[in-house]
Amino acid sequence: MNNISSHSTLEVYSFADNHLQKNLITAPEELHSYLGKKERKFWVNIPSLTDENLLQQVSEIFDIHPLVIEDILNTSQRPKIEEFDHQIFVVTKMLYSKNTIREIQAEQVSLVFGDNYIISFQETPQDIFDGIRLRLENPKSKMRKLGTDYFTYALIDSIVDEYYVILELFNDAVENCEDQIIKNTNSISLESIHNYRKTLRKIKHSTWPIREILSLWRKSEHPLIKRKNLTYVNDVYEHSIEILEGLELQRETLSNLAELYMTQLSIKQNEVMKTLTVISTIFIPLTFISGIYGMNFEVMPELQWKYGYLMVWLVFSVMIAGMIVYFKKKNWF
Amino acid sequence: MNNISSHSTLEVYSFADNHLQKNLITAPEELHSYLGKKERKFWVNIPSLTDENLLQQVSEIFDIHPLVIEDILNTSQRPKIEEFDHQIFVVTKMLYSKNTIREIQAEQVSLVFGDNYIISFQETPQDIFDGIRLRLENPKSKMRKLGTDYFTYALIDSIVDEYYVILELFNDAVENCEDQIIKNTNSISLESIHNYRKTLRKIKHSTWPIREILSLWRKSEHPLIKRKNLTYVNDVYEHSIEILEGLELQRETLSNLAELYMTQLSIKQNEVMKTLTVISTIFIPLTFISGIYGMNFEVMPELQWKYGYLMVWLVFSVMIAGMIVYFKKKNWF
Amino acid sequence: MNNISSHSTLEVYSFADNHLQKNLITAPEELHSYLGKKERKFWVNIPSLTDENLLQQVSEIFDIHPLVIEDILNTSQRPKIEEFDHQIFVVTKMLYSKNTIREIQAEQVSLVFGDNYIISFQETPQDIFDGIRLRLENPKSKMRKLGTDYFTYALIDSIVDEYYVILELFNDAVENCEDQIIKNTNSISLESIHNYRKTLRKIKHSTWPIREILSLWRKSEHPLIKRKNLTYVNDVYEHSIEILEGLELQRETLSNLAELYMTQLSIKQNEVMKTLTVISTIFIPLTFISGIYGMNFEVMPELQWKYGYLMVWLVFSVMIAGMIVYFKKKNWF
Amino acid sequence: MNNISSHSTLEVYSFADNHLQKNLITAPEELHSYLGKKERKFWVNIPSLTDENLLQQVSEIFDIHPLVIEDILNTSQRPKIEEFDHQIFVVTKMLYSKNTIREIQAEQVSLVFGDNYIISFQETPQDIFDGIRLRLENPKSKMRKLGTDYFTYALIDSIVDEYYVILELFNDAVENCEDQIIKNTNSISLESIHNYRKTLRKIKHSTWPIREILSLWRKSEHPLIKRKNLTYVNDVYEHSIEILEGLELQRETLSNLAELYMTQLSIKQNEVMKTLTVISTIFIPLTFISGIYGMNFEVMPELQWKYGYLMVWLVFSVMIAGMIVYFKKKNWF
Amino acid sequence: MNNISSHSTLEVYSFADNHLQKNLITAPEELHSYLGKKERKFWVNIPSLTDENLLQQVSEIFDIHPLVIEDILNTSQRPKIEEFDHQIFVVTKMLYSKNTIREIQAEQVSLVFGDNYIISFQETPQDIFDGIRLRLENPKSKMRKLGTDYFTYALIDSIVDEYYVILELFNDAVENCEDQIIKNTNSISLESIHNYRKTLRKIKHSTWPIREILSLWRKSEHPLIKRKNLTYVNDVYEHSIEILEGLELQRETLSNLAELYMTQLSIKQNEVMKTLTVISTIFIPLTFISGIYGMNFEVMPELQWKYGYLMVWLVFSVMIAGMIVYFKKKNWF
Repeated sequence: MNNISSHSTLEVYSFADNHLQKNLITAPEELHSYLGKKERKFWVNIPSLTDENLLQQVSEIFDIHPLVIEDILNTSQRPKIEEFDHQIFVVTKMLYSKNTIREIQAEQVSLVFGDNYIISFQETPQDIFDGIRLRLENPKSKMRKLGTDYFTYALIDSIVDEYYVILELFNDAVENCEDQIIKNTNSISLESIHNYRKTLRKIKHSTWPIREILSLWRKSEHPLIKRKNLTYVNDVYEHSIEILEGLELQRETLSNLAELYMTQLSIKQNEVMKTLTVISTIFIPLTFISGIYGMNFEVMPELQWKYGYLMVWLVFSVMIAGMIVYFKKKNWF
Repeated sequence: MNNISSHSTLEVYSFADNHLQKNLITAPEELHSYLGKKERKFWVNIPSLTDENLLQQVSEIFDIHPLVIEDILNTSQRPKIEEFDHQIFVVTKMLYSKNTIREIQAEQVSLVFGDNYIISFQETPQDIFDGIRLRLENPKSKMRKLGTDYFTYALIDSIVDEYYVILELFNDAVENCEDQIIKNTNSISLESIHNYRKTLRKIKHSTWPIREILSLWRKSEHPLIKRKNLTYVNDVYEHSIEILEGLELQRETLSNLAELYMTQLSIKQNEVMKTLTVISTIFIPLTFISGIYGMNFEVMPELQWKYGYLMVWLVFSVMIAGMIVYFKKKNWF
Repeated sequence: MNNISSHSTLEVYSFADNHLQKNLITAPEELHSYLGKKERKFWVNIPSLTDENLLQQVSEIFDIHPLVIEDILNTSQRPKIEEFDHQIFVVTKMLYSKNTIREIQAEQVSLVFGDNYIISFQETPQDIFDGIRLRLENPKSKMRKLGTDYFTYALIDSIVDEYYVILELFNDAVENCEDQIIKNTNSISLESIHNYRKTLRKIKHSTWPIREILSLWRKSEHPLIKRKNLTYVNDVYEHSIEILEGLELQRETLSNLAELYMTQLSIKQNEVMKTLTVISTIFIPLTFISGIYGMNFEVMPELQWKYGYLMVWLVFSVMIAGMIVYFKKKNWF
Repeated sequence: MNNISSHSTLEVYSFADNHLQKNLITAPEELHSYLGKKERKFWVNIPSLTDENLLQQVSEIFDIHPLVIEDILNTSQRPKIEEFDHQIFVVTKMLYSKNTIREIQAEQVSLVFGDNYIISFQETPQDIFDGIRLRLENPKSKMRKLGTDYFTYALIDSIVDEYYVILELFNDAVENCEDQIIKNTNSISLESIHNYRKTLRKIKHSTWPIREILSLWRKSEHPLIKRKNLTYVNDVYEHSIEILEGLELQRETLSNLAELYMTQLSIKQNEVMKTLTVISTIFIPLTFISGIYGMNFEVMPELQWKYGYLMVWLVFSVMIAGMIVYFKKKNWF
Repeated sequence: MNNISSHSTLEVYSFADNHLQKNLITAPEELHSYLGKKERKFWVNIPSLTDENLLQQVSEIFDIHPLVIEDILNTSQRPKIEEFDHQIFVVTKMLYSKNTIREIQAEQVSLVFGDNYIISFQETPQDIFDGIRLRLENPKSKMRKLGTDYFTYALIDSIVDEYYVILELFNDAVENCEDQIIKNTNSISLESIHNYRKTLRKIKHSTWPIREILSLWRKSEHPLIKRKNLTYVNDVYEHSIEILEGLELQRETLSNLAELYMTQLSIKQNEVMKTLTVISTIFIPLTFISGIYGMNFEVMPELQWKYGYLMVWLVFSVMIAGMIVYFKKKNWF
């Protein structure tokens, strides 16, 4: 792994309308020269939070508030946006799943942008910004032309797009679960519904504050946030609402599925009970009658009758037939 | 099918107070000349989204934002309204059902209007705007006289009117379902309640944002939206609220029906249990007594008694009668 | 019936501080002369909506918006208030019950008022405004002195007062239902709770928008709505809230009653099960023992014992006594 | 009882910083002289609403709006605050319990205050304002120094303080109920939970609008309500919120208790079922085996075997032992 | 214990940028001299509320409103913030747990701050402010440099940080409870879920108003609250929201766990019922057949057949096999 090198090496993209340069720098001090060139913007990606010393240096160069650095390091920080005079700070959560919906991971991505720089802090080195790098290479890309707020929007957009993938996976899983419950296969366990609900709560927990961030962004009057780029932010905002509505739909579906499961249990129990009742109700009285003629009283006139045994069989048959008719009428089988 | 021709041929209605002309054009460039004549308004209907090239050309002629074209093409776009300096963009969902409430289809209809043009984008060629065409032919119609915002309102109104049809169908289906549950016919399956709930969620999902769109429209201060036409928009807005309230009513009804179904299951189980208990409680003790006198002990004085057998029958009768009285008093049958 | 005459004859009350005249006019054109006399106000009641021609004429005389006429004719219109420059339009729902709470009827009453006129449109001829007529005859009545907005308020007030009657009826019905559930009489069926809930939803559906109308009225700045009369509107507004709170209370009560019903079913089932279990658990082992000594093995020493039979009875008694003690301790009977 | 005298005799407290005089007047007209002395304030307590004539006179002297008198007389009036140019009108509900929480009574107390007078209307003569009288006698009391709004605040405060007593009683009752459910004593009946819920709804119904009144008071800009006294109103406002939160807590607790009760019913039923199943599953097969050897076939070789009977006992023992092991493993007893 | 001395001895920290002095004073009058030195700030900690005389003196020195002293003494006061011209008063609740989550204690901490002083009132002497003392000793600490509002923020922050500890403990307990339910160990009792819910409600009850306080603080325009320190308050505010969201998540989890528990009870009951039904359904008919041939009729031809007994065994075997196949198909075991 080149994790070690990636800690000490920073990837810096310096760009302008007709300019793009990628540099790998090892000394954070070099960033001072980038900051000075106001006609160019640059993006620094810090791929992991392990090198606290580096973070300290970066924080000093860009004049980042100590509480912000604290928030960046606290990877269970709730997503939020905070405005300072010279820069804006955004915490977001990236969701990704390894294989199945059960292994959803949340990772914190923090963003700081000023008038000519964007800094992104990843929790662990991931390739989430590959799409961004590709778009940046395109000289006609809006990422080069529009301000740092557009650039930050593009980073958030690429994060939010991943939520759709997760939601899609989740929808499939729930639909599959629903099919199994309706088909009444025993393979579906109650715990799986319970686990889906838990996962859902976790996803919602990450998504909700992102909607809030974008809502605050839209209403912000900070000079770094330009009116003309708001159409783009509205777009991600709509996406975040769409995802939340999708999650809410799934929540209701799961709650209905749990209810459906419960009702099916009751239906099954009813069926079991009916079987027991039908069999018991038919045979317990018959057994009683056969018991009567198993008694050893000396004086039992029926026992001597020639057709006694036949008659008893007749009684048995009539009783069985009667019971069957009765249960048929009650719709019990 | 004339789908192919419909892709390349655009239906254009040019109209004014005392003028109506329908043209079929094949080259989108011809639209430039329409745009120029500011004293006339025109409506272009694009019946399907398959010809991306055409969309591109139209987008350039009318100066439509790239994100708008993206939203038009993404047919799972959430309904929304977006205002630009020179035009307003609206996404709506049309609902229609083939035969039963189970086969509800949602189709996206996007609308763009400027000072003298209205463009409508359908997902697939459907005859939803036939009513509009008819009204347009009437020289006294408000569609000719009032602005493009009224025209757009009329298009949305004709879409929202279809929701009433769906709601009516849904109400009938739920009422039918309710009747069957109360009459306790076994034909109604739990899955049907579950499916109605699912369909309801889907309809609500489409309707909710339409209410939002109309609410934003009412509050909008965009110059394309004229104060004097707001009475009409208020009307559709009221309709959307009415539909949502109708859906909410159905949601509550379905949730109560599910509860009713559960309770009826319990009542049935109680009945089954009572049958079992009554029969068992009567005959199990009797069987025990008959078992006693079936024992083969050498010394069993009762067996030699002359009226032993008769007495046993007396015991049987008294016990049965006692049980019946007891269960009658307990209201068990 | 004089329905036919009532269609073509309009009842017009012309009034001022010291003046009251009731006229029956047949030609709507006569209303023009009333409109002209600004120093007097007048009230026209249109008792049914069957004569569309009449409505058309009235609408032209009073310059009523076509959408308003549409709303008046659509008797499933949601209650609403709409302000125009020269008049205000209000749709309300009147509720009345024939005998029991099950037969609640909703009827639409639409009101239009301008600076010196009030028009009321009833769905069918009903005597709901008799109280109004009485008050009008009193020369000191505020109805004569205060503006047309007060008059409209008085009409709405007389409609809302009927809601209290309905709520009272409903409370009685629910309380009765509650008594029966707690006393556990079998006569109360689950469907009645279900039906009360349904009725409740229907009443709420009509009441909710009336509260909204009154809330809008209070905030309105329309010149026809006078500040000094707001105390009266606040009063009806408070009433509408009181009714809604009463309905909400009933909704919660009904939901608790349904739960109570369910729990009582479980309690009853527990009781049934206990009876079955007690009887079975006592007699099944006894039957087994009697079965043992009913076997026909040649070598069964107990059978020859002199006190065998007595001992078996002893065993029976000990077992029965033990079981009874056990079940008593478990509180099972 | 001196109820009769109390109807015709009014208790009037006239007070200023260094002055306090209590008068009993019989003719309401005497109040005119009090009204004139602007340098002094006075409080009139009307202890019951039975003398409508008196109310009429008082209403004329203090220029009280007819609707206010109507609200005072309607003892099921929802608590509210209404501002007039020259006075403010407040309706509140006093709650008190005789002995247990089940006998909660609500009584209406209406308050009207102007620049130098406070009038309180009680539904029935109660001693709720004894504390107020005591404080008034203290020459340093704020009640004498601060305005009539403070005096009214003090009256409301003494009413709200009673709510704490009720809440305390209620908490104790619910806690007691909870203990009994957890200890699973049969003495607690389902109806008591149901009744607590009902009582709770009733208390909440009275408390909620009081919070609203105080919230409106805080925001009011009426000249009778002085900014500097708002700290006191904030205090009662906080109290009303605290009481509502306490009620909400109890509501959730009761709803959980009902659920707990239901679950315990299920647990008990499970236990009953297990007993039945264990006994039946053990003895029914044994009875069958004993039945086999009770058959009277002529050719049944086992019956002649010397150790046949012993072997059957062996089979019995093995089967019983096997079953017990099986049920132990299943944790069924 | 030095509780007695701590009552009469007050700990006073006087501090400035380059100054820190800790004094123990016994006479509250000494505080006057501190109040006079406006260039220094000071913090007084009053470790318990037992000495009312002391509180009275302090209240006079700092001109604290009598209602504030009342709130400080009433240790069940709901957390709140109240602004006065010269000072701000904050009530908070400190939560701490002895060992397990069941023993959560809430203790009231009240704070009063003016332009150069901060007074903290503890319910009982606890060491919660040790961290504060440590930070104060650091000459570079912001606590010395920034205003009294920052100091108060720091005190609240140290209190809110304890909530995270409680939340963590709670999460662990719930997770443990969830594991046990899913693994279906009988050790978990229903009461523990019930108790967790109760504890949760209690924690939420304390946390909710703290969020409110911080929200009011953020919006406050009081001169004692400085704009530039708002970043810090935003931070605690975010923390309070995070804690509330964590509690809400736990609430939903517990409610799902209760549902899961109920469903597992049903599943277990189904299993019990199936066992009973399978055994009964197999053996009851067999017992009946054996009963038939135990009858003592003189004429029973089967009994004389040579292979009668064998045939009966055949019938038994066929019936058992048939039943087993049937139940296997029904998935009953």
